[in-house]
Amino acid sequence: MSQRPTKAITQTPFHYGAAYYPELWSEKQIAEDIAHMKKVGINCVRMGEFAWHTMEPKQDQIDLSFFKDIILRLWENGIQTVLCTPTPTPPRWLTYQHPDTAFVTRDGIKYEHGARQHVCTNHPFFRQRSDIIVSAMARELGNLPGVVAWQLDNEFKCHISECCCETCKGLWHQWLREKYGTIDALNEAWGTAIWSQYYENFEQVPQPVTTPFLHNPSLELNYRLFSMDKINEFAHRQAQLIRRYCDAPITHNTGMSFALDNQALFQDLDFVSFDTYPGYQNYGHLLFQYDRFRGMQHQPFWLMETSPAHAGCTLHTPAPHPAGFLRSEGVSAIASGAMGFHYWLWRQQRTGCEMPHGSILTSWGEPNVGYENAKALGHILKELAPIVEKAPVDQAQVGLLYSDIANAFFKGEFGEMVHYQDAVRSIYYQLMDLGVHRDIITERDDLSRYRVVIVPYLPAVDDPLLERLTRFAQNGGTLLIGPMTGYRTTEHTVPTDHALGKLEALCGVHVLQFYRADGTDAQMKGFGLCCAPVHWAAPCSPVEDTESLAAYETSLHPHCSAITRRTLGSGAVYFLAATPDAEEADAFWKGLLEQICREGKVGYRYPTDRGTLAVPHGEGRILFLVNMDGKGATIPLEGEWKDALTGKAVTAPVKLDPYGYAVLEKA
Amino acid sequence: MSQRPTKAITQTPFHYGAAYYPELWSEKQIAEDIAHMKKVGINCVRMGEFAWHTMEPKQDQIDLSFFKDIILRLWENGIQTVLCTPTPTPPRWLTYQHPDTAFVTRDGIKYEHGARQHVCTNHPFFRQRSDIIVSAMARELGNLPGVVAWQLDNEFKCHISECCCETCKGLWHQWLREKYGTIDALNEAWGTAIWSQYYENFEQVPQPVTTPFLHNPSLELNYRLFSMDKINEFAHRQAQLIRRYCDAPITHNTGMSFALDNQALFQDLDFVSFDTYPGYQNYGHLLFQYDRFRGMQHQPFWLMETSPAHAGCTLHTPAPHPAGFLRSEGVSAIASGAMGFHYWLWRQQRTGCEMPHGSILTSWGEPNVGYENAKALGHILKELAPIVEKAPVDQAQVGLLYSDIANAFFKGEFGEMVHYQDAVRSIYYQLMDLGVHRDIITERDDLSRYRVVIVPYLPAVDDPLLERLTRFAQNGGTLLIGPMTGYRTTEHTVPTDHALGKLEALCGVHVLQFYRADGTDAQMKGFGLCCAPVHWAAPCSPVEDTESLAAYETSLHPHCSAITRRTLGSGAVYFLAATPDAEEADAFWKGLLEQICREGKVGYRYPTDRGTLAVPHGEGRILFLVNMDGKGATIPLEGEWKDALTGKAVTAPVKLDPYGYAVLEKA
Amino acid sequence: MSQRPTKAITQTPFHYGAAYYPELWSEKQIAEDIAHMKKVGINCVRMGEFAWHTMEPKQDQIDLSFFKDIILRLWENGIQTVLCTPTPTPPRWLTYQHPDTAFVTRDGIKYEHGARQHVCTNHPFFRQRSDIIVSAMARELGNLPGVVAWQLDNEFKCHISECCCETCKGLWHQWLREKYGTIDALNEAWGTAIWSQYYENFEQVPQPVTTPFLHNPSLELNYRLFSMDKINEFAHRQAQLIRRYCDAPITHNTGMSFALDNQALFQDLDFVSFDTYPGYQNYGHLLFQYDRFRGMQHQPFWLMETSPAHAGCTLHTPAPHPAGFLRSEGVSAIASGAMGFHYWLWRQQRTGCEMPHGSILTSWGEPNVGYENAKALGHILKELAPIVEKAPVDQAQVGLLYSDIANAFFKGEFGEMVHYQDAVRSIYYQLMDLGVHRDIITERDDLSRYRVVIVPYLPAVDDPLLERLTRFAQNGGTLLIGPMTGYRTTEHTVPTDHALGKLEALCGVHVLQFYRADGTDAQMKGFGLCCAPVHWAAPCSPVEDTESLAAYETSLHPHCSAITRRTLGSGAVYFLAATPDAEEADAFWKGLLEQICREGKVGYRYPTDRGTLAVPHGEGRILFLVNMDGKGATIPLEGEWKDALTGKAVTAPVKLDPYGYAVLEKA
Repeated sequence: MSQRPTKAITQTPFHYGAAYYPELWSEKQIAEDIAHMKKVGINCVRMGEFAWHTMEPKQDQIDLSFFKDIILRLWENGIQTVLCTPTPTPPRWLTYQHPDTAFVTRDGIKYEHGARQHVCTNHPFFRQRSDIIVSAMARELGNLPGVVAWQLDNEFKCHISECCCETCKGLWHQWLREKYGTIDALNEAWGTAIWSQYYENFEQVPQPVTTPFLHNPSLELNYRLFSMDKINEFAHRQAQLIRRYCDAPITHNTGMSFALDNQALFQDLDFVSFDTYPGYQNYGHLLFQYDRFRGMQHQPFWLMETSPAHAGCTLHTPAPHPAGFLRSEGVSAIASGAMGFHYWLWRQQRTGCEMPHGSILTSWGEPNVGYENAKALGHILKELAPIVEKAPVDQAQVGLLYSDIANAFFKGEFGEMVHYQDAVRSIYYQLMDLGVHRDIITERDDLSRYRVVIVPYLPAVDDPLLERLTRFAQNGGTLLIGPMTGYRTTEHTVPTDHALGKLEALCGVHVLQFYRADGTDAQMKGFGLCCAPVHWAAPCSPVEDTESLAAYETSLHPHCSAITRRTLGSGAVYFLAATPDAEEADAFWKGLLEQICREGKVGYRYPTDRGTLAVPHGEGRILFLVNMDGKGATIPLEGEWKDALTGKAVTAPVKLDPYGYAVLEKA
Repeated sequence: MSQRPTKAITQTPFHYGAAYYPELWSEKQIAEDIAHMKKVGINCVRMGEFAWHTMEPKQDQIDLSFFKDIILRLWENGIQTVLCTPTPTPPRWLTYQHPDTAFVTRDGIKYEHGARQHVCTNHPFFRQRSDIIVSAMARELGNLPGVVAWQLDNEFKCHISECCCETCKGLWHQWLREKYGTIDALNEAWGTAIWSQYYENFEQVPQPVTTPFLHNPSLELNYRLFSMDKINEFAHRQAQLIRRYCDAPITHNTGMSFALDNQALFQDLDFVSFDTYPGYQNYGHLLFQYDRFRGMQHQPFWLMETSPAHAGCTLHTPAPHPAGFLRSEGVSAIASGAMGFHYWLWRQQRTGCEMPHGSILTSWGEPNVGYENAKALGHILKELAPIVEKAPVDQAQVGLLYSDIANAFFKGEFGEMVHYQDAVRSIYYQLMDLGVHRDIITERDDLSRYRVVIVPYLPAVDDPLLERLTRFAQNGGTLLIGPMTGYRTTEHTVPTDHALGKLEALCGVHVLQFYRADGTDAQMKGFGLCCAPVHWAAPCSPVEDTESLAAYETSLHPHCSAITRRTLGSGAVYFLAATPDAEEADAFWKGLLEQICREGKVGYRYPTDRGTLAVPHGEGRILFLVNMDGKGATIPLEGEWKDALTGKAVTAPVKLDPYGYAVLEKA
Repeated sequence: MSQRPTKAITQTPFHYGAAYYPELWSEKQIAEDIAHMKKVGINCVRMGEFAWHTMEPKQDQIDLSFFKDIILRLWENGIQTVLCTPTPTPPRWLTYQHPDTAFVTRDGIKYEHGARQHVCTNHPFFRQRSDIIVSAMARELGNLPGVVAWQLDNEFKCHISECCCETCKGLWHQWLREKYGTIDALNEAWGTAIWSQYYENFEQVPQPVTTPFLHNPSLELNYRLFSMDKINEFAHRQAQLIRRYCDAPITHNTGMSFALDNQALFQDLDFVSFDTYPGYQNYGHLLFQYDRFRGMQHQPFWLMETSPAHAGCTLHTPAPHPAGFLRSEGVSAIASGAMGFHYWLWRQQRTGCEMPHGSILTSWGEPNVGYENAKALGHILKELAPIVEKAPVDQAQVGLLYSDIANAFFKGEFGEMVHYQDAVRSIYYQLMDLGVHRDIITERDDLSRYRVVIVPYLPAVDDPLLERLTRFAQNGGTLLIGPMTGYRTTEHTVPTDHALGKLEALCGVHVLQFYRADGTDAQMKGFGLCCAPVHWAAPCSPVEDTESLAAYETSLHPHCSAITRRTLGSGAVYFLAATPDAEEADAFWKGLLEQICREGKVGYRYPTDRGTLAVPHGEGRILFLVNMDGKGATIPLEGEWKDALTGKAVTAPVKLDPYGYAVLEKA
């Protein structure tokens, strides 16, 4: 795999864009569209992701002149292009000729041509046709002026998860052979002596299709890992082909909830982009994504898809955002490190199931509901871009770990009780309430950037990560392990040395058992507070010098600890045995996190709560404040500040209108 | 297709009947049944719809003598027969020999023999066997004395919707070829450039079987239209065969919720009949059906199936109606234009999944729970029949449009939010509250019968209908367009000239966009009232002389109108942008509909509300009043009235007992 | 079939055991396990049910030496073994070689290898391999010292119900041929003239796979009976093979909710055992099972599986029981006639989907959450065993009928409204409230053991049972028939002589109709009380000398009776027309059951309610009291009692701690 980044994209000129489908419109409409884009401030369009048929109407009759022409016309009008490979929608000639390319579900249903992602991306014929069209695009379009970036395919695995077709079956067996070497290594790792599951050879290992009860969770987990590996292999193969011909940076338009290993996916891509359609009440979800996708490569990202007013399809359409929300969505994006903000889509679809989706123009070419908001935001972002170009987002001192691999574990266990994303996000909201500037990090990250690292809801901690966490603390870091961390091996089995395996030594605890706490009489007592635990708990006893900061009390077993702290080298390791619940949970978290932040000497903290975003830039010299909850805010800042745009002095407290923002500079 | 009606059925003698299955009972029981029918007042039975095996126990061994005998015996006892073709339950020899006749679901499940409608009615072998048995019946039984009418099959598509078998696939491609001529006409109409859906030939067009996300709504809609066309083709083919041999009028026992285009189905049949099993709380649903099925052919109809006490099957059985409800069900039927009222069924099933269903006699031949009510109703209907024979239901002056095609659209879009039947019915209830005598009409109806026409929830208004609506208004009619009308083309795509296409010119408005109103801050202000809109809205600006009657206010876009009015020729066009919701909705509707009725000079209005039915007969000389809600009513009538049955003078106000009725005649 | 019991198992030494899977653990761990078992008081382990692969790693390479060795080592350590046949988990070599062994669902899904019960137990190749492994086990292991009993397979039909594979299709036709002789006998019995279902031969009878609506309930019922017959045939075949080689008693680990005919299953086995994982709130469910499984053979039973703390799998895991509950579970077991109490499982699974399940030791060999409770219970049971050995549970005088066949009926009709188990159990709770010692009996039981027999919710009463019920009353018994009894024939059709067929003559009533009472205005009036009926009702008129004890009033039909009583011979027959509901239902039941118990001169009654169990032993000389609801209890006993363990006098009232117990002996 090639090294990233091959080419950097800067935050200025800020890429203010929209998805565009010229293949759907007449020459007259295209001309009007391009003229209108300039009026709205659009300087970048994304094209091609569903246009395979336009590019190759019959097999091997590739003709890219239409897109070549559009790219050049856009460029002449000052509009750059993000070029997408068109593989999410293989054309009918491909599927009609090769019905065995169909995606097959766990229930054995072969998907019919229609919608998107109806084809197994591992099928050799599909892969071959993908190679040909991607290479042709890279060769013929990749070096045109205005081509600012590439997007691979679109929203991998947004409609589907694991394919169970015959092609996948063969690749699955091959993948297992490569991973385990011998079938007995697999049998031992998965414990197939259970229920006489023992396999005599790799060919006997089933795919996780319907069975009377549950498959072995090790099989389930590995099939998810296999599927995530394979789609990344497909992505990286496209990237390689593109790089043969041109050097524009490459991204993928990913999402939080797709069945993907984003960490591995973006390791070999040049920058991160993603889509999101937050309901206005879910602004916390939006900020979580900004921090996550900035954290993934520690460089600016693009928001590649969002709606000027509302998402929608013929199945379900939410109501338009309230006025003002789009502004806070856009300003919080650039404040959080976005260097691109793109709408889906420029002109409302005339046909197909996404007709009801919001857009900038209507199908008949007039301003749509969110038009004025989008136009106004364009001006704002243009004004703010020079500020962030000179003063990028500051490196956070607190890292909160979120892992796509952990997510795969929760799909196979506890999913009924714990929604992984929600669970991690609930801790994120606690950090927001403390006004702490933070990153979302992955388990592959360089921990030395942080003073505090929080590792919750991570079922398996592998040896390299354990080693890095240990080193982090030894070198002065403050580490919080838990809740629900380390109770499984990487093969989704139970550790057999201790409840949490080697993690117990790091934390200096002995865990009684990892079991369901929800519905018992247990209480977590600490910080003068008392909380019932939810989810699962790992009540422990401190070992040696470890101190107990909170008790775990229940009639089920003798007194244990709910929180412990251990000094390690020049740092410290905190262990949290369970997730606090009920009325006092926020106060309980506050007690714990305040102590940790204090011990970690965490800077970049502001007197905001989860309703308002605060992001420091340029070593804390610049401060972005954005009201997200639509209630407005009054922020009692200390020190002397001025307005970064006007230079006027600002007197504390700073008042923000609903969805309002301020960019302050130290005076 | 032949012209209807080939033969009229009058309202007297009123056909008071029951479904009868002599093939299930012994000779002794049959004799008892016939004797007992006379006691209850049954003068008509319906037979044969599930008796294919009795008629043709082995392929080509047709023997109809059993039914011939029964028909003659009934006739000798003064009981007429409705003969049904037995095609809903093809016998086992047919399916066993041809397993490929099986109905196939969208998920690819082939239905097993069992239940009903397990066969694809398009399969050539099934069609051939249907031709043979239907022809034999018509030839041998059709001219027997007492055969008063034919029923084709039974409840088409009551258990199933669109079949996706291989036979259907071929016919689908042929149907598309006939509709579009060239594949590129289809590609353009459906906008298949979206998502690379482009088809090179008709054979490539998929059936709407399972795919990762949504099919193109144009494909979805057309497959529904195809399916509805095909079942009608099947029905009309049966009708043609029958007409070769006999001239009894032909009907089908249809229902509100089956996957059918009833308008087209009954266009070539002789009279309308349907089944309904209303819960007593849903009496409004019942009246809606009476008005609809009378309106469909503008002549009397039959209620072909209802229960004397309760419906039921082994899966689910509702409780029996409260005492009295059956009376109001029957009297409202004849008041609304019924010329037949039939029970399902005479004698409780001894076996099969409908054992728990209500009936007149029990399996063991004794009076069942609803027996006395049914007997009493028989007398009442006999007494009322001469009145309606002389004074049929008056032509209503208000027509409310209900369309099976619209229903097909809502199955493909907005179905999550809008239940089409419920939505139209909620307007119907407003008309009930205003005491307006009304018809439910179809888009193929002669509008000149009406003073006011209301066209709500009609996604696509085709050019001929648009033209007829225009003419209606120009000629002095008062037209109400909306809510949720005209936002799609007939191909289920977005109009590209205006939000509502050419409809905007008729209404004299410019619509901003058609978008989801539910969940926004919008308010509809008019008639001194203020309502939030639900569902989707088409906020508009009046053009030229159009006046705004109510405002549409929201922070999302500048001030628009919620209701407009435009003078057109000697009539007027009202446009309603959205469905009012919340507490004031009824008052809002009342304000609008009162104005429209006033402008339309609507007569036949009575001081009743939705709890009591009022139906004028004989140019308003006779008035039926029926209490439907079981609460009784006091009706302050003006003018001099007498009791139509006794001739006694009636003094206002008229008091109705719970479920009571009165038939008044102008004194 | 052989006669039972071939060999008795006594209640002392009490079998205190756990499921053990030595095939999953190392030699070192096994040694530790055996040592640890002795510490906890485990004197019996259950092994082998999932170990087919360990026993026969490749086809025909059977090697049982591992288990032979373990059994001997256990025996040397004073631990007996229950040997299980390993057929619930056929190994991969079997399914890979014969994919047609797969279980097929009603929807046509072929289950993949994985989980358990993925194979059709009727498949000839599977049956052949089962014969071979079972015979080998019996021959080589059956006569080892310590092999105290055999368990056939495990939890038959716990994950699955009826298989619809091709093998089953052929067997189904053969089963029908044997049952009905001629196809016309079947056609008549099922009433296939309905819906043209008539079959020309047995091959045409479908399996109940997906069809557009409902299959004939006679077909549904018979397929369930067929499936239950076949699994019993499989069980009895295993038992026969085992008995060829050894004479240890044979059982099956069954459950309340599996798709089984337990009555027929255990008729040819030697003792009853079952599993249950009650939530602590469902202690009534637990006691119901104790009484049922004791009643099934009228001899002691084993609880073969329960959890020391909580059940669980990766899909769902309940919270651990509160402290104390395990004690009440165990003491109520021995009080109710258990001679074995086994945990699932000894050591927490390291892999597979049951990792989260509670156990005595953790995967890493330390005490798990419920460890101390299990250890304490072992001591208690050891102490109590001699008492129950000398004074077994007294024969109850009240029998409440529960039938697996009735359950099969309710799966095909009324299941939406009536949950059969819950319905019968709600009457059971009334008996608990009256402090009545009771048995749960089956329709095949010897009724002469009882003074009162209650027959509720039994859709079909066949002639032999009717005859036995009649004789029971004639000979002085007091019989309660209903609610919801006798309304169907044994073929799941409607009786055609009377609503309840010949049962009406026994009860001395004439039933109007059996219909849904829930949702009507009906009231049951008696005992000075008034209750609405729920479910379905059979309102009746007393005939001849029958007296009415309660009225059934409704506007739907003339006055009927809700309860009647008739003297028959030296006994009496009560008939209950419907299930009382609402606030007064408990009082209504109390009124009825008090009268019946009084008339039946029922002894063994104690002043307890459903919160506390009272069980007489040794002709009433010994009394077990166990608090089940965790609230403690105060029991005002009459007479002189002493503590059966300590001999100390006990003064009334007896106080029980939460989950506490007392064993009293008459002083």
